Amino acid sequence: MDASLTLAARPLEDETGDALDRLSELVSADMELVNATIIERMASDVPMIPVLAGHLIQSGGKRLRPILTLAAAGLNGYNGPNHIKLATAVEFIHTATLLHDDVVDNSDLRRGKKAAHMIWGNPASVLVGDFLYSRSFQLMVETGSVDILGVLANASAVIAEGEVLQLSAAKNLETSEETYLKVISAKTAALFAAAAEVGAMAANASADKVKALSDYGRAIGVAFQLVDDALDYDSSASTLGKNAGDDFREGKITLPVILAYERGASDERAFWKRVISETQREEDFAAAVDLIRLRDAIEDTLKRATVYTDAAKAALTAFPDGPYKRALVALADFCVSRAY
Amino acid sequence: MDASLTLAARPLEDETGDALDRLSELVSADMELVNATIIERMASDVPMIPVLAGHLIQSGGKRLRPILTLAAAGLNGYNGPNHIKLATAVEFIHTATLLHDDVVDNSDLRRGKKAAHMIWGNPASVLVGDFLYSRSFQLMVETGSVDILGVLANASAVIAEGEVLQLSAAKNLETSEETYLKVISAKTAALFAAAAEVGAMAANASADKVKALSDYGRAIGVAFQLVDDALDYDSSASTLGKNAGDDFREGKITLPVILAYERGASDERAFWKRVISETQREEDFAAAVDLIRLRDAIEDTLKRATVYTDAAKAALTAFPDGPYKRALVALADFCVSRAY
Repeated sequence: MDASLTLAARPLEDETGDALDRLSELVSADMELVNATIIERMASDVPMIPVLAGHLIQSGGKRLRPILTLAAAGLNGYNGPNHIKLATAVEFIHTATLLHDDVVDNSDLRRGKKAAHMIWGNPASVLVGDFLYSRSFQLMVETGSVDILGVLANASAVIAEGEVLQLSAAKNLETSEETYLKVISAKTAALFAAAAEVGAMAANASADKVKALSDYGRAIGVAFQLVDDALDYDSSASTLGKNAGDDFREGKITLPVILAYERGASDERAFWKRVISETQREEDFAAAVDLIRLRDAIEDTLKRATVYTDAAKAALTAFPDGPYKRALVALADFCVSRAY
Repeated sequence: MDASLTLAARPLEDETGDALDRLSELVSADMELVNATIIERMASDVPMIPVLAGHLIQSGGKRLRPILTLAAAGLNGYNGPNHIKLATAVEFIHTATLLHDDVVDNSDLRRGKKAAHMIWGNPASVLVGDFLYSRSFQLMVETGSVDILGVLANASAVIAEGEVLQLSAAKNLETSEETYLKVISAKTAALFAAAAEVGAMAANASADKVKALSDYGRAIGVAFQLVDDALDYDSSASTLGKNAGDDFREGKITLPVILAYERGASDERAFWKRVISETQREEDFAAAVDLIRLRDAIEDTLKRATVYTDAAKAALTAFPDGPYKRALVALADFCVSRAY
């Protein structure tokens, strides 16, 4: 067992935990403009809209996706202003999906705060999500590029398809690793890919470079979700902003569960069937964590994540060395070693 | 009391009930292409998507909004193919808002059928709505016009704002007629306006003509919603595809209620407060219909609708006479005399 792949010991954390900081610093002037644009564009004559949207959007998310847009633009020498609008559009799409996800999953918490639908109700969360989604398209329209609109419209459709696929596979322990990867590629990685891609497009990068950044974004998106799903079975992951065990309590079929079920003896399979499809008791989460450890399911989930971060780094080989490239490489490493 | 404005006697019905048929006939070849595009574009590898979307989209809606797009294009001499894509996009936006509305209102029925969320659940309705919304933007992207994308993105944002405004005003009997008009202008008329506007834009019509069709669409949209809200208090309106009394049972603040409350004596106001904000009994709907009649609230709602249909017809004066113009004029009349 490779110690660097366990959650208990994270030797890379101090080193690469700074990666996001360094990348944030590189794009900090742009990010201030993005934050100003977010506030400006979530404004509405209908007071409930900025209140509800602001609750989530200003709750200390890491702004990973807009950072990708800004960094991809910066890596290709672009100075604006369209990358600011696109980064804002990307964050609005992300926020809209979170608002709808929390309704779909009936989640209590988001980023350590009460989820919006728990305060304002499901109807408001659905409708404000729709509003932000529309706002994101308005921002894209302002950039004047139909090609960029196409990339983000495609990503949005793929995200929705991924969410419906996940819903269709809900509580089904026979879900294959292939279907799981399809779900996370769609619901998570598609927006990471589009975020990086449109940054490069705004900078008029060559088709090869645009594709390289799309590949990079997609790969770290898959890695990000794999690690997220692993961290849900790490009881020390309080920095997640959600509680460890949330996925478990919602009966979500993630890779750690798929692997533990697939590899489990018949009594283990009976346990998983009961807790996912029937009833859960207080002590079941601790038992689930033990079974997942027994079957090396966290270790193997993280191993798969490193395959994707390696691919992400490889996608950047065409770019010359420089601060943006170094930061993006470090960000890829951060994705497998992070405690968000 | 002008008899032509009562719901009991609809002298124009036979005459103008054909208006939609005549307009449908004018655009029938195009509409076949729209229906084929709808089926083609709601397809997905995720089987739940076309099943759920198809349940609603093939349930005999009148396709009023795509008809507007096709007619506006036809009135300006356009032969395609972009109006087909735009008409499909408009119907997808409309369908997405219906799916989300039914979740928001917790409605049992839609077009006389069980509402989708009652069969597949709220999560699936929210997510398939998101999917159709994304698909609509993909279709617009294919037309290559950023200006058209802008019109429909703006309309979508306005619709969502209108829905949130309606939610904020829910069960508030002090809602002004002005706020009510703001809500229906946003949640209903904005898409009618955009549907007609983008048809004209696809045809490269002059700015004046594009504006005229936008004004026409907006005006008949307001009239349409006014009549819809009046029909909810007409117990003979079984052809609505929803039950008369749905708005009443949901405690919706529509113009008939606003007028009856505003004009009511203190015992009437007490009745409205109880049934809207507190509890309803079986016999309350009949009593509400009586009070609405007593205060001429239906008659005055329909009078306001005719102001808008007159404005709609006036907006078309710049266009020379011809089959499209005559059909659009008749459609405006149909909006106040219809039994949908």
